[in-house]
Amino acid sequence: MKVIEQPADLHVWKLVLAYDGTEFHGWQVQPDCATVQGELRDAIARITGEDVLPQGSGRTDAGVHALGQVASFALAAPIPETNLARALNRTLPASIRVLSATRETSDFHARHSARAKTYEYRVFRGEICPPWLARYVYALNVPLDVAAMQRAAVRVCGEHDFSSFAATDPDRSERATDSTGDGLGGNVRCLLTSQWMPDGKKDLLVYRVRGNGFLHHMVRNLVGTFLEVGRGNLAESEIPAILESRARERAGPTAPARGLFLVNVEYSSGNSPPERVLL
Amino acid sequence: MKVIEQPADLHVWKLVLAYDGTEFHGWQVQPDCATVQGELRDAIARITGEDVLPQGSGRTDAGVHALGQVASFALAAPIPETNLARALNRTLPASIRVLSATRETSDFHARHSARAKTYEYRVFRGEICPPWLARYVYALNVPLDVAAMQRAAVRVCGEHDFSSFAATDPDRSERATDSTGDGLGGNVRCLLTSQWMPDGKKDLLVYRVRGNGFLHHMVRNLVGTFLEVGRGNLAESEIPAILESRARERAGPTAPARGLFLVNVEYSSGNSPPERVLL
Repeated sequence: MKVIEQPADLHVWKLVLAYDGTEFHGWQVQPDCATVQGELRDAIARITGEDVLPQGSGRTDAGVHALGQVASFALAAPIPETNLARALNRTLPASIRVLSATRETSDFHARHSARAKTYEYRVFRGEICPPWLARYVYALNVPLDVAAMQRAAVRVCGEHDFSSFAATDPDRSERATDSTGDGLGGNVRCLLTSQWMPDGKKDLLVYRVRGNGFLHHMVRNLVGTFLEVGRGNLAESEIPAILESRARERAGPTAPARGLFLVNVEYSSGNSPPERVLL
Repeated sequence: MKVIEQPADLHVWKLVLAYDGTEFHGWQVQPDCATVQGELRDAIARITGEDVLPQGSGRTDAGVHALGQVASFALAAPIPETNLARALNRTLPASIRVLSATRETSDFHARHSARAKTYEYRVFRGEICPPWLARYVYALNVPLDVAAMQRAAVRVCGEHDFSSFAATDPDRSERATDSTGDGLGGNVRCLLTSQWMPDGKKDLLVYRVRGNGFLHHMVRNLVGTFLEVGRGNLAESEIPAILESRARERAGPTAPARGLFLVNVEYSSGNSPPERVLL
């Protein structure tokens, strides 16, 4: 007699993913739209015959890229680790790559177990943006006071209520609670790193931010605000007042999606950043 | 009374262009298809009101990229050099960039005046091709005898009849005569450089070829043949016999378009290669 499989028999998987978000309608599965989560679900189904919806460490918007997104899901079938990554990469479109597929303990969850995330935002400062970078940078060839932007970036480090930098779309308000880790209430998040890193040789200006969680559009709204500081439209000394106001209209505009990369997600079990492969 | 403009009043322009060919149906204008030539014609018309068809140094196929394609055309309106390049870059899609726009003597023609062209073909050898390279490389993760490929590449240097490496599509047979310079008859061309350049750090293997003209699909057919040598399916000593046979079926398959870049076009007036901006 065949033993009915219990949940305890399920194998929990962790995938580390790189993707080019340009041609996807974001991470989250949607009807009649190509999404990263949907492509992944379809590939898993084609390989295993199992219908599972992989959970991401968080959603990325349309046009946002990932160097090291993490997804988790449970499969009934036992599959060797190397086989699953190879089979997925043969099945997925070239714009999504599985960097690693590993078995995890049954309590692992890509979002709930995450402890910190790192994002980077890339601004191209040259006069002519090469066509092969256009999907991966925000091309902005105007004078910028980078020192003032750097001072502004430091002012958002630490624990703050980031309501002024959260998307105000009411139909997606549940996303305002999208965060790594448990017990993060409201719009309070803690940023551990927030800095601009100029790379003059490549005409790139990169903003790197690491924190315990991010509100919807938070990185793009921070970048849009810092760029207003760089252009001289906003004093960096205004940043604390903008944070305190908890008013979205006080901060700057949302920077374009194409410059944003989810670089990596950290877990208590340790998760080293992926090797940098871009630019 | 307005003086009727004579052809002698026309200003001949030379553009150096970079483009990502992925989303274009090649260089040459076609009805109801996005092409590089068509986008350029439309942009020139929007800026100047003049309907001119820019002539390329040669056509590139769908999916083939350019680091330094050259186009020429004549305009009646006098326009400052810096203005035309900037106006075109504001009007063209981000996948096409004008690297320079300069006035030339009235006898300049992007194709007829060309003396040599350089192409590069990029093969990605790693196990996982990063999504942001997928449009710009041929990902081929199989063992290759690169030394044999290099010996094969040297064997096509010099003047040869390259019929064995020319596309056999009869409806486009006029393209078999597409070549730089005047007086190049039939399928005889002279290759000045033909070499493979491994770049182990980036898992890239690059084929660079420089010659006085190229037949349709010639670079991709050479690469496809060298890859057959690398895989051990063809002896490099067969290359001279393949050339002499003038039989397309003797050579290897056509390598995918996405790995191919037109690097630059040389003219007697001197045209230094564009700065390398990719990979």
